Amino acid sequence: MANLYVKKLEGRSGRQLAYRLAYGCDLLEGLQGIVEEEDVRFGSINFLGSVLKARLGYFLVDEKRFITMEQDRLMEILSGMGNVSLKDGRPFIHAHLTLLDQEGRLHGGHLLPGTTVYAGEVFIEEIELPAPPERVYDPVTGLTLWE
Amino acid sequence: MANLYVKKLEGRSGRQLAYRLAYGCDLLEGLQGIVEEEDVRFGSINFLGSVLKARLGYFLVDEKRFITMEQDRLMEILSGMGNVSLKDGRPFIHAHLTLLDQEGRLHGGHLLPGTTVYAGEVFIEEIELPAPPERVYDPVTGLTLWE
Amino acid sequence: MANLYVKKLEGRSGRQLAYRLAYGCDLLEGLQGIVEEEDVRFGSINFLGSVLKARLGYFLVDEKRFITMEQDRLMEILSGMGNVSLKDGRPFIHAHLTLLDQEGRLHGGHLLPGTTVYAGEVFIEEIELPAPPERVYDPVTGLTLWE
Repeated sequence: MANLYVKKLEGRSGRQLAYRLAYGCDLLEGLQGIVEEEDVRFGSINFLGSVLKARLGYFLVDEKRFITMEQDRLMEILSGMGNVSLKDGRPFIHAHLTLLDQEGRLHGGHLLPGTTVYAGEVFIEEIELPAPPERVYDPVTGLTLWE
Repeated sequence: MANLYVKKLEGRSGRQLAYRLAYGCDLLEGLQGIVEEEDVRFGSINFLGSVLKARLGYFLVDEKRFITMEQDRLMEILSGMGNVSLKDGRPFIHAHLTLLDQEGRLHGGHLLPGTTVYAGEVFIEEIELPAPPERVYDPVTGLTLWE
Repeated sequence: MANLYVKKLEGRSGRQLAYRLAYGCDLLEGLQGIVEEEDVRFGSINFLGSVLKARLGYFLVDEKRFITMEQDRLMEILSGMGNVSLKDGRPFIHAHLTLLDQEGRLHGGHLLPGTTVYAGEVFIEEIELPAPPERVYDPVTGLTLWE
């Protein structure tokens, strides 16, 4: 099935970590700080809550770079999903958000620094593996993916 | 890292519960009834399916209260995410939904009573901890958060 | 609580599988191929990444059939959620997607064949149970649900 996937990983459930994030902290820096502090090398992340403002990315395929969208107002986090894996030997967060504004409109994107927590409840499910994957630059997509 | 989080919890994977909800049941009452029946004290929840109608909340920061949005029609649950923790000593559900209507528009919010199940597939991952967190009123945000 | 749910399942955490999907593969065929290859009989799935194009379904209750929406452009996967269970004795994927286009608009639906992976990071949490549920046709909803 080499045509379906590039990398397969198999492990077992490890530590189940959960956090109430601090009001006013940067969401990505908070998640990043936590996985570094705990040395989580591989796992799945989900979170919900709300943000005071958001800065999100959308990847432009043709130019192989992210464009940035900013919303300077309170929004609910309808879904926060992501993972942690290694990049340059250190735990690295990859996460996407779906947000709701007061007018009932939805927004979303790739979580970037500049998103501020109003309230945040985070679950990190560590996966214990013999060899956690490392992110490296992939010239086909322009992204850093599991080698 | 006191500036990143207020509360840290660490446990291990417990019971993995899954349910097919009954057609016509109230989604929040269904989830709430299940975690009470099973005495799930802490864990993560995800679900998908569809609803016959929805009643969702958006938190108004300035007034520290929820406004309510109702949609009286069938919608797909694109994502249902949440958690269970204790409030007043009893299991308590906190969940957010993203929904899709027939015109392709998305809706979402904080799950409230009044959302009716068409079909629902629910996963509850219990987390076993020495001391599950208790929700208490937080004056900064106006929400009940893990103390 | 027969009025809240039709089926209850209880198991324990099994294999934790994760994959980097191949650029250009069909997302549903990729997920389906993986669970067949590994013989995952029950579990929860989450994924994120992006797609080159999408083909999604919305279930028409009155007619008890899916209508199809197609988007032929790159979109971020804001949330990919689903599960695996048995249908006709074989592992079967049920998944819903929320997507973001370049103009900042969100789309979503029931994952159908014809959705092409740009980048995909998938987590499959196997749940070990004595008797995994089997999907059978349910005349009330017109869906195949856990019996």
